[in-house]
Amino acid sequence: MQKVTPWEVKGEVDYSKLIKEFGTSPISESLLKRIKNHTKDLHFMLTRKIFFSHRDLPWLLDEYEKNNKFFLYTGRAPSGNIHLGHLVPWIFTKWLQDKFNVDLLFQFPDEEKVVFKKDLTFEDTEKFTRENMLDVIALGFSPKKTKFIIDTVHANLMYKHAMRVAKKITFSTVKATFGLTDQSNLGQIFYTSMQAVPAFLPSVIKNKNIPCLIPLAIDQDAHFRVSRDVMPKLGYYKPAIIHSTFLPSLLGPKGKMSASSSQDTIYTTDSPKTVELKIKKYAFSGGQPTITEHKQRGGNPDIDISYQYLKMLFEPDDKKLENIYQNYKSGSLLTSELKEIIIKKINFFLKKHQQKREQAKKNINKFILPT
Amino acid sequence: MQKVTPWEVKGEVDYSKLIKEFGTSPISESLLKRIKNHTKDLHFMLTRKIFFSHRDLPWLLDEYEKNNKFFLYTGRAPSGNIHLGHLVPWIFTKWLQDKFNVDLLFQFPDEEKVVFKKDLTFEDTEKFTRENMLDVIALGFSPKKTKFIIDTVHANLMYKHAMRVAKKITFSTVKATFGLTDQSNLGQIFYTSMQAVPAFLPSVIKNKNIPCLIPLAIDQDAHFRVSRDVMPKLGYYKPAIIHSTFLPSLLGPKGKMSASSSQDTIYTTDSPKTVELKIKKYAFSGGQPTITEHKQRGGNPDIDISYQYLKMLFEPDDKKLENIYQNYKSGSLLTSELKEIIIKKINFFLKKHQQKREQAKKNINKFILPT
Repeated sequence: MQKVTPWEVKGEVDYSKLIKEFGTSPISESLLKRIKNHTKDLHFMLTRKIFFSHRDLPWLLDEYEKNNKFFLYTGRAPSGNIHLGHLVPWIFTKWLQDKFNVDLLFQFPDEEKVVFKKDLTFEDTEKFTRENMLDVIALGFSPKKTKFIIDTVHANLMYKHAMRVAKKITFSTVKATFGLTDQSNLGQIFYTSMQAVPAFLPSVIKNKNIPCLIPLAIDQDAHFRVSRDVMPKLGYYKPAIIHSTFLPSLLGPKGKMSASSSQDTIYTTDSPKTVELKIKKYAFSGGQPTITEHKQRGGNPDIDISYQYLKMLFEPDDKKLENIYQNYKSGSLLTSELKEIIIKKINFFLKKHQQKREQAKKNINKFILPT
Repeated sequence: MQKVTPWEVKGEVDYSKLIKEFGTSPISESLLKRIKNHTKDLHFMLTRKIFFSHRDLPWLLDEYEKNNKFFLYTGRAPSGNIHLGHLVPWIFTKWLQDKFNVDLLFQFPDEEKVVFKKDLTFEDTEKFTRENMLDVIALGFSPKKTKFIIDTVHANLMYKHAMRVAKKITFSTVKATFGLTDQSNLGQIFYTSMQAVPAFLPSVIKNKNIPCLIPLAIDQDAHFRVSRDVMPKLGYYKPAIIHSTFLPSLLGPKGKMSASSSQDTIYTTDSPKTVELKIKKYAFSGGQPTITEHKQRGGNPDIDISYQYLKMLFEPDDKKLENIYQNYKSGSLLTSELKEIIIKKINFFLKKHQQKREQAKKNINKFILPT
């Protein structure tokens, strides 16, 4: 049985089932074409269906075409170090920002994980907020068009509007949507109201209704299933959403990379040696038990983690990816060779990322929304 | 059946029953003596048992005697105009401030009534917050020793700590304590966490544990039944509390003056004519149906609203009050005469209060806590 909530992804994830369950829409070819009219090319995360589902994207494009520009909203609940899985929606968000030339509000809900994790404190999340910001900045977001909003730091801007949202949501609803219970704490129950706010805060500040597009991994959809119904009651547009699949854990193709175990995760701060070790030791393989057998029968790239990481993050070139796919499938590309490819790709990426992360340290304040 | 929650007072209130139900302590003669050691005299609200119940007051005095000074915390959820009933705990708080020479944190939880009243908006409470502040200032609180904290305005200071409280309270608890249900909205459920914060915020800001005394009408006790258990877990003292009874409505001696009907309420902004009319027309009388009968059988001051207002607010002189009591009881003081006494007292008070309220307009900013 699959379970996909903002705080738990369990079981084998069937994405087409999620589309039905959550009531979202698949991204059709004609919608891709419409996007391409504006962006000239399509990010591989779109053509490869890493971003596979949406809410109200045609409406958002209607508005855009009427010169009613949207802004982007995504975020990160600081509670640990950033791993490759976190980067998927952010890299795509950066692409959207560049192509549509739009503002981005990036939320750091630093209270969320405090109320969901027994031993996590605000001292912890304060540290992680700063650390996580470095990863976001390192991806190259424009400081002019990107603002960080931190729930406890910007509570003066947010709390009142969170209460306006909270007034319109009953406990019954969050019980049903998030699987909360009578034993849930008040912070867990209230939190979704804060996650709703950045989707309309620019409309409040500029005193005019501005469309919003939220790129996110589909486990976060629950928040907006609830708050999208509320926003029109407060006088704002429902935000449009575009959903990504999860980057799988090193240990296997199903489920989601998680920051809770360092064995199944590659952090953005991992050294080249650590990356090599983790891939060689843990990365689930679609290959055969022996080289001879592999050459004879071929491997299965569809369940191979190294291949999946190339597809989702590290090989933008479709032709090269297809070659790898076919060679692995035919058996001419060995698992050890495929692992060398992904190790090289990850380490190439991380070397530059870690440099940019260092440089980001002096730029944090440029990104933080004025209080 | 009595029902006493922060949002509803229903039925005939039996205060000794509340002491048992809520698990508070009555204020004993020896405790009064101990207070008098510090204050030299006792406010009539203490000797007349208007303030009748407490939590941990002996502990607070222990600390005070060890030179560990407390601060006062009380508040007002802005949602309408101030009536005489609101003044009872505030006048007493002012006395405590003067006698013990202590700071006061006065909370304006401007979100509370928004989430509890269907049609109330933040535009409304913003206006009422300002209006209500004038009444508080008019009572003569020291601007040096008194700071106003407004939930939406000071959310940067409060929200994080409210979440620390919220993490330690389950929905089960607020369900049982406040009578909330699955149909309650998320703002109603979360709100008590914000009401807890001022009780330890000075300890956070000064980075040392400071005792807190909360004077309040006993319907507000529920909040602290819940949060007093939480605060030691966060490293702070449990606040001490001193509880008042309710000023009864004009319409009868049971229950609580309410701002929801202007018939049973005297507002601080009422004109002398309005006060006269309300008292003459609505003030419940303990007198007899005819003057002859009244002179023969006497009236009942214990249920007479005019007498109750003298006792709780307007006649500090015990001897004068006793005379009125005996004369009304014997029948020599007529209801119309008693009503004239209270009308004069209220209008004398309100005339000065309204002048001070006008003067307060230029001083609001002196009272607001820096953000």
